[in-house]
Amino acid sequence: MNLKKNERIDYIFNQSLPIIQSKDVFSFSLDAIILAYYTKISPQSKVVVDLGSGNGAVATFLLRKTKAKIIEIELQKQLVDMARRTRELNHAQKQITILNIDLKDSLKYMAHDSVDVLCCNPPYFKILPHSIRNPNSAFAIARHEVRTNLLQILKTTNLLLKSGGRAYFVHRPERLTEILAGFSQYNLGINRLKFIHSFRNTNAKMVFIEAIKGKSSDGIKIEPPLYIYKKKGIYTSELSDIING
Amino acid sequence: MNLKKNERIDYIFNQSLPIIQSKDVFSFSLDAIILAYYTKISPQSKVVVDLGSGNGAVATFLLRKTKAKIIEIELQKQLVDMARRTRELNHAQKQITILNIDLKDSLKYMAHDSVDVLCCNPPYFKILPHSIRNPNSAFAIARHEVRTNLLQILKTTNLLLKSGGRAYFVHRPERLTEILAGFSQYNLGINRLKFIHSFRNTNAKMVFIEAIKGKSSDGIKIEPPLYIYKKKGIYTSELSDIING
Repeated sequence: MNLKKNERIDYIFNQSLPIIQSKDVFSFSLDAIILAYYTKISPQSKVVVDLGSGNGAVATFLLRKTKAKIIEIELQKQLVDMARRTRELNHAQKQITILNIDLKDSLKYMAHDSVDVLCCNPPYFKILPHSIRNPNSAFAIARHEVRTNLLQILKTTNLLLKSGGRAYFVHRPERLTEILAGFSQYNLGINRLKFIHSFRNTNAKMVFIEAIKGKSSDGIKIEPPLYIYKKKGIYTSELSDIING
Repeated sequence: MNLKKNERIDYIFNQSLPIIQSKDVFSFSLDAIILAYYTKISPQSKVVVDLGSGNGAVATFLLRKTKAKIIEIELQKQLVDMARRTRELNHAQKQITILNIDLKDSLKYMAHDSVDVLCCNPPYFKILPHSIRNPNSAFAIARHEVRTNLLQILKTTNLLLKSGGRAYFVHRPERLTEILAGFSQYNLGINRLKFIHSFRNTNAKMVFIEAIKGKSSDGIKIEPPLYIYKKKGIYTSELSDIING
């Protein structure tokens, strides 16, 4: 496999899965690992989508969980190029399809109500005046709502998912009011939330969300939280288990 | 102090605060203690309201935190009668005012935008067909939305609070979508949420909410959770500290 300038191959889950990373463009983070770990895919699922799939990290992790067809949807050409080579490294050309499109155009390429499971690690941050130096950088597009936003993503999620299909997201708890309102607006009933805290005594820095298309917004379950570190630099045993697959 | 049939006096905070309880009508629970404990009252606060104050438990706990005027608002005559005698036991007739009214009529008795801090332990449960045997019982009114509901309570909260005033609630996490939407609708920006779990490995059974009138709904902080039990029947040290004041 040819690597381009500043690219490297990371191996995760005890060295079993190779993923091409680039410090110039984008590297996956704990968020992607946590999202993939908590995503549930039943044996009956036929189609799984990763919206805004970046370098293909989440889809690669999911290879270990499912034989379903996995469709990656990603706008940025450079990331798609890395994702294609990562797919090849993992011999997953038959299982993974990669669409290099704007997610708002998904319905031109896929049927309504055709997806069993959808996951998404969206851009976390709103665009505020002066919040972004270079709005065209790959980092800005992955982290800030430059080219899409939460409501556009939820609208697409609603259109793609079957009734009863499940959406899995990670996001920032600071935006919880907007997140719950958005899921509700697009008929995605939240089933469970899990907050992720760096330490036992710090505020949550991430929220994992499971929603079901067509479910009522009542009856949310708040699961026990996940703590990342037991002390500075040392992962909790719970997180170590997640990272080691 | 004369006690009526089936009443008893409970003492909390190391026996320092007496509260009249009745197993026939209503007894305060951990929820009231947790609400009062996490409610912050600045030294500048002049007026504190407890909406749906029951037998006066929350207000009695707050006597230890503030010299501000405390107004209890409670619909049920029997509970108000207990609250009045509890107030007397605590020699707090000057500090505590008790209004035996429907909270939706609060503005007939108090000025708009006049309250610094408002706390509320509301009825948690919606009325569903057949969910209540006797809708006129004191228990049903305290626990189910028979005589008021979340939006009515939040409307009253908005009208009573000063701009920048703080609302403190406890509620059920199952209704989180509706709760966040309601606070947002009535211009009460959530500042922080704390989830309360019985055990380290069980879902949350309560949520503590701090909101600020006029604040944006962005920027919610999810605090470290509170665990009630370290094992069955044994409180965590964190909860023991709360109960012992």
